[in-house]
Amino acid sequence: MQDSYPSRIYQEPKLLERQDPVVYNPTINQTEISKEQLTFYEENGYLFLKSFFTEEHVQFWKQELTRLWEQSKEVQKPEVIREPGNDEIRSIFAVHRDDEVFKQMASDQRLQGIVNQILGSQTYIHQSRINFKQGFTGKEFYWHSDFETWHVEDGMPRMRALSCSIALEDNHANNGPLMVIPGSHRTFVSCVGETPDENYKSSLRRQEYGVPDQESLKQLAKQGGIVAPTGKAGSILLFDCNLMHGSNSNITPDPRSNVFIVYNSVLNKLNAPYSGKGPRPNFIAERLS
Amino acid sequence: MQDSYPSRIYQEPKLLERQDPVVYNPTINQTEISKEQLTFYEENGYLFLKSFFTEEHVQFWKQELTRLWEQSKEVQKPEVIREPGNDEIRSIFAVHRDDEVFKQMASDQRLQGIVNQILGSQTYIHQSRINFKQGFTGKEFYWHSDFETWHVEDGMPRMRALSCSIALEDNHANNGPLMVIPGSHRTFVSCVGETPDENYKSSLRRQEYGVPDQESLKQLAKQGGIVAPTGKAGSILLFDCNLMHGSNSNITPDPRSNVFIVYNSVLNKLNAPYSGKGPRPNFIAERLS
Repeated sequence: MQDSYPSRIYQEPKLLERQDPVVYNPTINQTEISKEQLTFYEENGYLFLKSFFTEEHVQFWKQELTRLWEQSKEVQKPEVIREPGNDEIRSIFAVHRDDEVFKQMASDQRLQGIVNQILGSQTYIHQSRINFKQGFTGKEFYWHSDFETWHVEDGMPRMRALSCSIALEDNHANNGPLMVIPGSHRTFVSCVGETPDENYKSSLRRQEYGVPDQESLKQLAKQGGIVAPTGKAGSILLFDCNLMHGSNSNITPDPRSNVFIVYNSVLNKLNAPYSGKGPRPNFIAERLS
Repeated sequence: MQDSYPSRIYQEPKLLERQDPVVYNPTINQTEISKEQLTFYEENGYLFLKSFFTEEHVQFWKQELTRLWEQSKEVQKPEVIREPGNDEIRSIFAVHRDDEVFKQMASDQRLQGIVNQILGSQTYIHQSRINFKQGFTGKEFYWHSDFETWHVEDGMPRMRALSCSIALEDNHANNGPLMVIPGSHRTFVSCVGETPDENYKSSLRRQEYGVPDQESLKQLAKQGGIVAPTGKAGSILLFDCNLMHGSNSNITPDPRSNVFIVYNSVLNKLNAPYSGKGPRPNFIAERLS
């Protein structure tokens, strides 16, 4: 099997050109985003839509978030990921599967319309999670391309997936907002280092494999700059699976919780992982049966 | 001896009202800052002056910084402080004493004019340091009031000192700029926890004592907000010794190096430390002989 996006196999990092479209259907077939916005997404690899969801929606979801957070505090299960160095919850996975409220959020018709437009097909949810970035102690999340991991560790064949990050709190410049490198989705950074067995057990807390090298990041940032889209709760950030992104720590009192939903095209179902290792569990990477 | 600003002695944190002026000479006696700017400083506890120093100055200082950094890499001496968790240099202390170039910077006449205006007397340098916040790996610096430490560990009696941070690189929103809580200089946060012996040996790398509690920080931030003044290299930030400040991590490729110079009034010379412990070494806290 020819691997279009080899990673973690060479001695040196490599910058490889993207071989897939970004926007799979350029003909507007929904009413939520315009042709200009679609073009912006294609060029930059992301689109930020301020106050896409109403305050009422946000309030409802925050209540559910609080409930889920409290409920998960004492629970030891693989879907609940804790901060490196302490036991605070960092993420809860598979909320679209295990929680009725977030299941509804993920199947929002307006959102689905945009996603199907960009990916040019029907989609399914590859992964979902809530990320809690606590006030005062929220830790940084280093630069990465999601696709690199999904390809190597989950066997996602092509770049035909995207993430939607839904802000449940106001994102401002100082509380560790998500930063993106515009245009970086057009380059695949082939990373150095073999994947260990069951890497996901530690990588969800702190990533050590599939980490892009500093020189590649410098080059991408020099070309595209760094942008941190900020806005009120209810804003959403749509971004391509190969867009380089990360975030700094958060010592402000303001927490920053986001729901991430990853949509994958039904024409891009997972193969065996390209690492040659066993697949990660379903709560991280949905393998349609 | 009556302690006006007791800290690290109570079981609970306390918010105490400032008992000292902020601006000691309200009558303008220099030409660098206006009455309005002086009033801004008094109310907010800081003043940001964009491009105070020219690009030529900055270039000259950056060359010296690079030289000093290279020279200090292999040097084990107390003035060179390294990052927690690795051996990268975080700070170099006493640069106004040990380095001719930074000695000249610290005695800049325009700067001295402003400092003497605010502190209402002649001043001397209590402390100086270069802070390196590396690109990619620069760590966060948690909230603190400098005065809390200088009072408890160095015996600085009153709030009659200020810091000047001189940016040697552009500070932007994403490379971990210094954040301040405007107005927080009017409240002294009495912290919990006794000071261990020779605390400075670890506290310069990661502070564990004299750390303000979350409730106090929330209250101060609710009142004053959080501001991260940003600007080109050569900009300076003047801030009161009791202003609450800190910074997030820096995963961007852009390093952020600043020179800090702390001026203290000659009428505010150090006593014995209020902790009852021995004084810290001179390179951290100048004890005029």
